[in-house]
Amino acid sequence: MAEDKFFEDKFFNARVSYDADFDPRFAPRFAEIATFMRAPYRPDLREIDIGVCGVPYDGGATNRAGARHGPRAVRDLSTLMRNIHHVSRINPFSLARVADVGDARLNSLFDNASAEKDLVAFFSRFAEAGATPLTIGGDHSITYAILKGVVRQGPVGLVHIDAHTDVLGPIQGVRFHHASPFRNAIEDGLVDPARMVQIGIRGSHNTSEAWEFCARHGIRVIYIEEFDALGVARTVEIAREIVGAGPAYLSFDIDALDPSIAPGTGTPEAGGLTMREAQGLVRGMRGLDLIGADVVEVSPPFDPGTNTALCAATMAYELLCLLAEARARQA
Amino acid sequence: MAEDKFFEDKFFNARVSYDADFDPRFAPRFAEIATFMRAPYRPDLREIDIGVCGVPYDGGATNRAGARHGPRAVRDLSTLMRNIHHVSRINPFSLARVADVGDARLNSLFDNASAEKDLVAFFSRFAEAGATPLTIGGDHSITYAILKGVVRQGPVGLVHIDAHTDVLGPIQGVRFHHASPFRNAIEDGLVDPARMVQIGIRGSHNTSEAWEFCARHGIRVIYIEEFDALGVARTVEIAREIVGAGPAYLSFDIDALDPSIAPGTGTPEAGGLTMREAQGLVRGMRGLDLIGADVVEVSPPFDPGTNTALCAATMAYELLCLLAEARARQA
Amino acid sequence: MAEDKFFEDKFFNARVSYDADFDPRFAPRFAEIATFMRAPYRPDLREIDIGVCGVPYDGGATNRAGARHGPRAVRDLSTLMRNIHHVSRINPFSLARVADVGDARLNSLFDNASAEKDLVAFFSRFAEAGATPLTIGGDHSITYAILKGVVRQGPVGLVHIDAHTDVLGPIQGVRFHHASPFRNAIEDGLVDPARMVQIGIRGSHNTSEAWEFCARHGIRVIYIEEFDALGVARTVEIAREIVGAGPAYLSFDIDALDPSIAPGTGTPEAGGLTMREAQGLVRGMRGLDLIGADVVEVSPPFDPGTNTALCAATMAYELLCLLAEARARQA
Amino acid sequence: MAEDKFFEDKFFNARVSYDADFDPRFAPRFAEIATFMRAPYRPDLREIDIGVCGVPYDGGATNRAGARHGPRAVRDLSTLMRNIHHVSRINPFSLARVADVGDARLNSLFDNASAEKDLVAFFSRFAEAGATPLTIGGDHSITYAILKGVVRQGPVGLVHIDAHTDVLGPIQGVRFHHASPFRNAIEDGLVDPARMVQIGIRGSHNTSEAWEFCARHGIRVIYIEEFDALGVARTVEIAREIVGAGPAYLSFDIDALDPSIAPGTGTPEAGGLTMREAQGLVRGMRGLDLIGADVVEVSPPFDPGTNTALCAATMAYELLCLLAEARARQA
Amino acid sequence: MAEDKFFEDKFFNARVSYDADFDPRFAPRFAEIATFMRAPYRPDLREIDIGVCGVPYDGGATNRAGARHGPRAVRDLSTLMRNIHHVSRINPFSLARVADVGDARLNSLFDNASAEKDLVAFFSRFAEAGATPLTIGGDHSITYAILKGVVRQGPVGLVHIDAHTDVLGPIQGVRFHHASPFRNAIEDGLVDPARMVQIGIRGSHNTSEAWEFCARHGIRVIYIEEFDALGVARTVEIAREIVGAGPAYLSFDIDALDPSIAPGTGTPEAGGLTMREAQGLVRGMRGLDLIGADVVEVSPPFDPGTNTALCAATMAYELLCLLAEARARQA
Amino acid sequence: MAEDKFFEDKFFNARVSYDADFDPRFAPRFAEIATFMRAPYRPDLREIDIGVCGVPYDGGATNRAGARHGPRAVRDLSTLMRNIHHVSRINPFSLARVADVGDARLNSLFDNASAEKDLVAFFSRFAEAGATPLTIGGDHSITYAILKGVVRQGPVGLVHIDAHTDVLGPIQGVRFHHASPFRNAIEDGLVDPARMVQIGIRGSHNTSEAWEFCARHGIRVIYIEEFDALGVARTVEIAREIVGAGPAYLSFDIDALDPSIAPGTGTPEAGGLTMREAQGLVRGMRGLDLIGADVVEVSPPFDPGTNTALCAATMAYELLCLLAEARARQA
Repeated sequence: MAEDKFFEDKFFNARVSYDADFDPRFAPRFAEIATFMRAPYRPDLREIDIGVCGVPYDGGATNRAGARHGPRAVRDLSTLMRNIHHVSRINPFSLARVADVGDARLNSLFDNASAEKDLVAFFSRFAEAGATPLTIGGDHSITYAILKGVVRQGPVGLVHIDAHTDVLGPIQGVRFHHASPFRNAIEDGLVDPARMVQIGIRGSHNTSEAWEFCARHGIRVIYIEEFDALGVARTVEIAREIVGAGPAYLSFDIDALDPSIAPGTGTPEAGGLTMREAQGLVRGMRGLDLIGADVVEVSPPFDPGTNTALCAATMAYELLCLLAEARARQA
Repeated sequence: MAEDKFFEDKFFNARVSYDADFDPRFAPRFAEIATFMRAPYRPDLREIDIGVCGVPYDGGATNRAGARHGPRAVRDLSTLMRNIHHVSRINPFSLARVADVGDARLNSLFDNASAEKDLVAFFSRFAEAGATPLTIGGDHSITYAILKGVVRQGPVGLVHIDAHTDVLGPIQGVRFHHASPFRNAIEDGLVDPARMVQIGIRGSHNTSEAWEFCARHGIRVIYIEEFDALGVARTVEIAREIVGAGPAYLSFDIDALDPSIAPGTGTPEAGGLTMREAQGLVRGMRGLDLIGADVVEVSPPFDPGTNTALCAATMAYELLCLLAEARARQA
Repeated sequence: MAEDKFFEDKFFNARVSYDADFDPRFAPRFAEIATFMRAPYRPDLREIDIGVCGVPYDGGATNRAGARHGPRAVRDLSTLMRNIHHVSRINPFSLARVADVGDARLNSLFDNASAEKDLVAFFSRFAEAGATPLTIGGDHSITYAILKGVVRQGPVGLVHIDAHTDVLGPIQGVRFHHASPFRNAIEDGLVDPARMVQIGIRGSHNTSEAWEFCARHGIRVIYIEEFDALGVARTVEIAREIVGAGPAYLSFDIDALDPSIAPGTGTPEAGGLTMREAQGLVRGMRGLDLIGADVVEVSPPFDPGTNTALCAATMAYELLCLLAEARARQA
Repeated sequence: MAEDKFFEDKFFNARVSYDADFDPRFAPRFAEIATFMRAPYRPDLREIDIGVCGVPYDGGATNRAGARHGPRAVRDLSTLMRNIHHVSRINPFSLARVADVGDARLNSLFDNASAEKDLVAFFSRFAEAGATPLTIGGDHSITYAILKGVVRQGPVGLVHIDAHTDVLGPIQGVRFHHASPFRNAIEDGLVDPARMVQIGIRGSHNTSEAWEFCARHGIRVIYIEEFDALGVARTVEIAREIVGAGPAYLSFDIDALDPSIAPGTGTPEAGGLTMREAQGLVRGMRGLDLIGADVVEVSPPFDPGTNTALCAATMAYELLCLLAEARARQA
Repeated sequence: MAEDKFFEDKFFNARVSYDADFDPRFAPRFAEIATFMRAPYRPDLREIDIGVCGVPYDGGATNRAGARHGPRAVRDLSTLMRNIHHVSRINPFSLARVADVGDARLNSLFDNASAEKDLVAFFSRFAEAGATPLTIGGDHSITYAILKGVVRQGPVGLVHIDAHTDVLGPIQGVRFHHASPFRNAIEDGLVDPARMVQIGIRGSHNTSEAWEFCARHGIRVIYIEEFDALGVARTVEIAREIVGAGPAYLSFDIDALDPSIAPGTGTPEAGGLTMREAQGLVRGMRGLDLIGADVVEVSPPFDPGTNTALCAATMAYELLCLLAEARARQA
Repeated sequence: MAEDKFFEDKFFNARVSYDADFDPRFAPRFAEIATFMRAPYRPDLREIDIGVCGVPYDGGATNRAGARHGPRAVRDLSTLMRNIHHVSRINPFSLARVADVGDARLNSLFDNASAEKDLVAFFSRFAEAGATPLTIGGDHSITYAILKGVVRQGPVGLVHIDAHTDVLGPIQGVRFHHASPFRNAIEDGLVDPARMVQIGIRGSHNTSEAWEFCARHGIRVIYIEEFDALGVARTVEIAREIVGAGPAYLSFDIDALDPSIAPGTGTPEAGGLTMREAQGLVRGMRGLDLIGADVVEVSPPFDPGTNTALCAATMAYELLCLLAEARARQA
């Protein structure tokens, strides 16, 4: 296989040189600047297929903050990843031009509406350049801005893996917060609720507002209890049937995982997914026409052992494989 | 639903005031004094239905101490909980008058017999006031004192979820220790071994004393291996059959959970329950005639990521839902 | 001494009772609900002299968040404190009616101007009730709101112990942020820059704006290097001379301490004060006419060993002694 | 049962004496010098059946180091173990003479070939003395040295539980590294690939070299995905069929476990085994003709909560039960 | 120098052998069983000069427990120590026969009076064998038992470095607790208060009982504030003058250090000694006629970074140098 | 001042754009890819004055490994630094072209001699390009390779701040290890021992080899005890006198700091420098003709609170100021 050449030609068995041929992806995992998977840093979106970006923002959090530190921590742990997937044998870097495009930049640390505006502008550039975004959050409010930036031709389908439905309305007059992205997206016509599935939902509430919104809009909610009964394979079937063949987006909130696995998050809910289940769910989405994906709500200050960041990097790699294949199909 | 009004009327969308109407349960989760779920603090038991209390005591531990810090840590994390259960839709606060009644007070830091006496007196007050105790330990010795305080009319049934059988005899002449509560309770006629089930039991021993005690008294022990084979639903059926319709108590030792989930405990045993299993087991006990419940052996000094306290708070909330419904039925 | 009776009469050597006489301050340090030093919780300010309050807010932070969790963590560690100071022999509880008045409540999680308004209203109530506030932050923006709420008759003097001068102007159009409180207070006439001293200042900047503001307004800045040369005693003399006899406020930013001592803070600067120095500085302010004090910028998510919260609780106790004596003098 | 006498005769209920009869295995778990399970320290191999040893070496690691600290941490946590297995009721100490024989000693901290030579010599002493080694690593390179030391009569079977196949060739001219032990062993005729099974394999690669080596040599690789589908019982059947009745070795790499359970390891791969699964797998190997076993790749610097060391100690105890029974059969 | 031969002859540059000549003190610091400084384990006291022992007991603690784990953690970190002191050039192992004699054994986990009795018996054996004890605690109550065991001919002098005076009377009827050792020792005539000095004392109290006891008995208390003014050299002079030439004991409570240095302790008090100060104080006691010493109150569950155990091991090594020199003088 | 324009023109108050003008140094501290201080990444040395580089290597460590992770952790924390020094008012970025040149690359993970050769080649490129290296280690062995690479015209002076003298000879036949760099450098004629000063030295040894080497070569060793007596200012005078006016190098081993401040290091020695002292020492070297500098031995796996990395980043910034001024003088 072509990949073998990497091993032979690159770092482990070749002489070190300092010219342009060096590829840090093949250096020891602790070495080199921590871009995502040590992919090249290319802020210019025009010559890439998939742009991995960070959104160091948690202004939409209602409980613990800290997701502003998510992108850097996930980049750090992502250097443990290797290129070829052991199940699908996809090597995303051989299917698509993948770069780390850096972090979204915000004009305000304090104002949610301003952040929303800046993020929409940032992600609009992906649509304009024809690049697919793989985003590392940041709190979940950002998914609405991503969708607003990249969805151009009618609502898309949505695979939403999370502990929470995130369909609340404005809180204290603010619409752009981490519990509202999907309500916002549905209200704006960016997501088709009939092509939307939520998996892993759980946890107590103070009101039934969210549950009622989902019912009213016909969103298919697979609570963790139903998921437990269905298993991964059947859940995947249901999800694929709902989302269908059209363009779709996948949003993975790290709090979908059990907090023993992913403690570093803003709103932990005991009783979540295992990593094997989460990997099975995402791999099951292979072949969907994905236009983007994200991993959000990683809060490193609550992640003393860094396993949350490791899981987020792992899920981002799983998503990168799907996005690369989708790009290759689209090409 | 009535609960919706909380959201509209209370903190998130209403003007702050400093009068008596403010309900801290609806404040952001990091705010306000950390009573259990930020319920009101009411040391007087006479006007409440369910009294959540702490027992900051670990004088009965034979291995690691630290459960003396359990109540405060669980109270802290309990403020992440919300009111309405997402499966049962029970809101315990709408079914019963729930208060945090503070900690049990002990005349001695050093003397196990004195602690036992004080705890029995403390829990007798619940029986006298007609209040149901939901106790946060503290090491497991306290469950014997709780039962001695609250059981007034013949032995009760017991659902015991734990890694250990806790039926040893006196150690070094002391009867009130954390490996003996259920032997003590059976010997005192507080628990009916024929209506008792133990779930999650595992781990090596130095003698077969405990295993033999259980066999001799006909206690149904569902080791973790049998549980693994049975699954949650069938285990629940078996347990309900054993416990039956009469008054029963539920004791949840946090070390029933796998130590990767609940490291903060005195005697961790690898290979335990997941939270989804634990939640399934407890929810399966809905409808039992519960007269009280506890969550014990949370040792915060061994819980650097606070997930043990989060799980304990979550299980206490699950138990609170059952107790509130039981109270509503009894009323 | 009268205090001896506590020991004899109270928890350690007396029978437990559940009546109103129980004083949790004398319970073992790990027991009971964690109000500040386990003082009584009294949200009504009218019958107290000194109200210890929390401000669970970090919306003004420009770097790491987390100070929203500060009040709860400081309350937790404050239960390690005892009543009589070993140097001054002050017992604040015998000099003044001290209560924990709970947390300030905010109408918005997201809007700095709204938070400012709510905090000013909250602290105005202290002025109206004639109570002295001892505030646990929260980021440093809140000090401006405190001063706006409690300063009624012309500018006050200020002892400001911190790594940063906190005199920047608006950032991104927002005036109420954690680097601006003293500029805001000076511009509003709440603090007299000629009666203001800053101790412990250090750290690199991107501009000279802050240094120039201090110079322009004649604020006496004792950088850590000058402090090192002067020593505690001489620094105290200088500070007292500047602040003089009039009403004064003391603001202690926990990042004044070296980050090896207080890692749990939003903007750590290596090379700070030791606790012995900090205690010496605060004790040196005994006798000033203090109208309030605060300890701010404690960020528990960055405080794995809890030493930051312990130091904050210790400094709050030191300040409580000064405030209690000031109240006794004023009475 | 005989074991009961321990309880009656030994520490818990007997008078302390300082003579030779004291058995620290029955002391409280936190007491006494931390040999493995507080077994006697006997560096002389001639009078023992099973020698538990440490290899404090990580010179073969290609990613994170730290396994040099593994033996001490596992010994520390092993004192939580008790003697009689709750499922098999095996007491290894009653079946075999078990001792902690200390650590292997290395002439060089820096040279892999020298370390290999010293380790082979160290483990040859087991073969010469007729003792069975139970080894606590150290990185996985050491398994090759163990096999080279103890395998004397033709290749053995191998049960290999791991996230990685560990069949790479030399890296940078070095053959003795932690990704090569089983290739080395096969190439040297120490392991029969037809009697070898790998369980739990997963994770991305930069080349297909390892996958191809396994295919070429007919090694049965049960990826984590296949394991998930098969379940523990069926996997055990397959493994037993492959390994058969002849002499066999069992190597347990702690990174087979999910990193949420065992974060303290050099090359974590999300999506691994649970402890219940790992225990089930190892218990399923009961009756195999085991000539030795190891637990490797425990890296305490990455194990802040010590759960990795606890799991490693637990697995070592499970293996000790199998080895003791095998010895008893062989005798 | 003779010591050089160790380096040449021993581990680093010599061939490994498994005979009796191997000295683990010269192995890499992470290797070998963790006895104190990897000295030989010799429970028989008759052929040694100095016996390092552990007391895994915290039954006398009134606040946080955990000192039961102290001996093992200090032993672990003590393997970082080397033999020759860089200031005094003392090599304790060349001056005296030093062994790790293991842990004191207790008949009861629960009963303070029983523990006292067992400890007195344990330490009496030192007096009988003519061995000097260097003890690793355990809580501070044990110092009273040590003194009771080893002091045979009239009261001794005492150098007491601590945050607390530890001269309280019985609590709740119990005399053997961690706040009473020196009152007990004085009342029993084991310590001469006129030859006693306390250094580093600080922290608030609930009563003036302790301060008054010291004053009444003429104990010289050097509070941390006075120490700060005096400096190490002058404090040493004062202490030496008080203690004089007769037999003396040195007790070092790790909470004398600032909690930023030694967080792992039961009753932390902010504002303590630095390690340089502590080392200066202990080194200043060179030449005293020391009959024993201890380092107590190390609580590993509160020591996530292990610096407390490192400091305790370092102080124990400093004390070992003094004790070895004292033995050499006495011989 | 010119720097003010940064503030006005750049991130905080300007509109976000994605063109080349964006300077990540002015973004919020948690944002953007973590190069050193978010300086541009420029692996080509020819157009820069000062190249900050990492050496992710700890193959020379004799105790704990982990310094291989040092560069990434220090880069991460370095984004907390700002540009203008508060004492010297130096802005290194306005005095010199400063870039992060990435990590040195090594052909072998396992062979010390190979690593030495690669590092010498890497640092020779600085000499060839006329760039000054500021190196983040890695273990201390690398300083020898740096000196071998950059020293071209006779021996240089050396300011060495460390707990250890690092002048041992070969260990086990290997010369390139972390306890030998300065012996190697002196033996090779790269450092003039008469122009060399060591500050902060302390800790026990197994032989007097190192002490004797220093004495024999006339190296001025200022032990921590002498430093304590001299103070920073006098120590600086002595050091400057020794080093004199010629070219010099400064090597800062993070273990010079007290382990309570910098626990994350391979060979911690209690009783070290404070950060204020360390900063005072380095600032005191202003004006020396520095040709390079390093901060070594940062081991993130032992740095749970990240303060070690923060201190290392801070010291690297202090050194950068000196190097930038030296470059400006040389220009």
